[in-house]
Amino acid sequence: MTYGVGLLLKEGMVLLSDTRTNAGIDHISSYRKMFHFSVPGERVITILTAGSLSTSQATIARLQEAVEDPEASPESSILLAPSLLKVAEIVGATLWSVREGMEKRLHTNGTFGQATMIVAGQRRGGVMRMFLVYPEGNFIEATEDTPFLQIGEHKYGKPILDRIVRPDTSLADGQKAVLLSMDSTLRSNLSVGMPLDMAVIERDACQVARERRIEAGDEDFRAMSEAWSAALREGFRKIGILK
Amino acid sequence: MTYGVGLLLKEGMVLLSDTRTNAGIDHISSYRKMFHFSVPGERVITILTAGSLSTSQATIARLQEAVEDPEASPESSILLAPSLLKVAEIVGATLWSVREGMEKRLHTNGTFGQATMIVAGQRRGGVMRMFLVYPEGNFIEATEDTPFLQIGEHKYGKPILDRIVRPDTSLADGQKAVLLSMDSTLRSNLSVGMPLDMAVIERDACQVARERRIEAGDEDFRAMSEAWSAALREGFRKIGILK
Repeated sequence: MTYGVGLLLKEGMVLLSDTRTNAGIDHISSYRKMFHFSVPGERVITILTAGSLSTSQATIARLQEAVEDPEASPESSILLAPSLLKVAEIVGATLWSVREGMEKRLHTNGTFGQATMIVAGQRRGGVMRMFLVYPEGNFIEATEDTPFLQIGEHKYGKPILDRIVRPDTSLADGQKAVLLSMDSTLRSNLSVGMPLDMAVIERDACQVARERRIEAGDEDFRAMSEAWSAALREGFRKIGILK
Repeated sequence: MTYGVGLLLKEGMVLLSDTRTNAGIDHISSYRKMFHFSVPGERVITILTAGSLSTSQATIARLQEAVEDPEASPESSILLAPSLLKVAEIVGATLWSVREGMEKRLHTNGTFGQATMIVAGQRRGGVMRMFLVYPEGNFIEATEDTPFLQIGEHKYGKPILDRIVRPDTSLADGQKAVLLSMDSTLRSNLSVGMPLDMAVIERDACQVARERRIEAGDEDFRAMSEAWSAALREGFRKIGILK
């Protein structure tokens, strides 16, 4: 499994993903699940992936190929597409075409090879947008009412986001929130694992402002995790019992 | 959906369940999902149910019928069974027979009509035991390493239990922990709903020491929920950002 989360805040966007993949519990590996496509100052697009690794990798590879194609067009390249909506459409169509190809080969049409993606970005002159692309290529968009999107093993880490994240949450608090959301997921589900990739995109900068890989032994992350555990225990202690 | 949780602590057992059931999102009702079978001082058994309401109700009704049968035997009645293990076996066999009957009628063998149960209890002279009975009638048991069991929509409320609940957690803290676990679930998933049923069974008492229904407008529960939110926000505020 995977856990990936993106926040769409007034100040910018925060993205976090883990790196664990498994094909059965005895075949566990670490793969990057966060990908940046960017022309700094002009356009930034960050994609998080969850689900089938082969589908995800093939989709990202095809998107990259389309970007590098000498005949790249606004119809094919996410770096030339006229809007972020069009970017989401290209990602969705590519994702679906990869999976469709596999299904035809295997004569299946179930959940085989499914992958889900978060597509976040901004082009110069446009607004920041963030989409959740479903395995069939359709998508939904983050809004003021729902300023975060999650993929993969999302339930363990949702309560903290529900309580903390609002559109006017600061980028600093947003980074704390996604990391604590991930921390709860890591504790409750072994199939989500370190290292983590975090990226921060500031509004209107059209580039990745901060990229941080958090390795398994990261002292700062451990300290944050322990401080949060202590705060939870202390908060728990103070609460009175129900009469 | 449903959320049900049981703690097996050194001091006793704490059980909590919601009451919401739905058949499609426009057919929502409230049904009790916690059932007590008891001969006070001799034996106490509490069952929580999740999943298909018809399977759950039929299973509980058959267990009740078997208890009241003038020819009830240690093989058929959970109030006469020689051990809690045998109780879990009877519950599992009854649950499976109900579902098997439905499947035969419908010629299906998928997930239709599945239900899951927590069976907690103690008989005089025995130890407290708690089982999670699967839809097929097999079961697992809570242990010192894993002193809690959950059924239904369990992921949202697991992180708080992972952090707080140990075998030597007090019954008072256990009640707080299950209620806060439920609170997180209620906030994140509309298909779990008030009112709630909570029961406390003290070790060796062989009866339900406390039963508490928590209605939607319960002031004490609301105050606890708000205090927990405030504690989380305060704890969050204090944590430093990752360098």
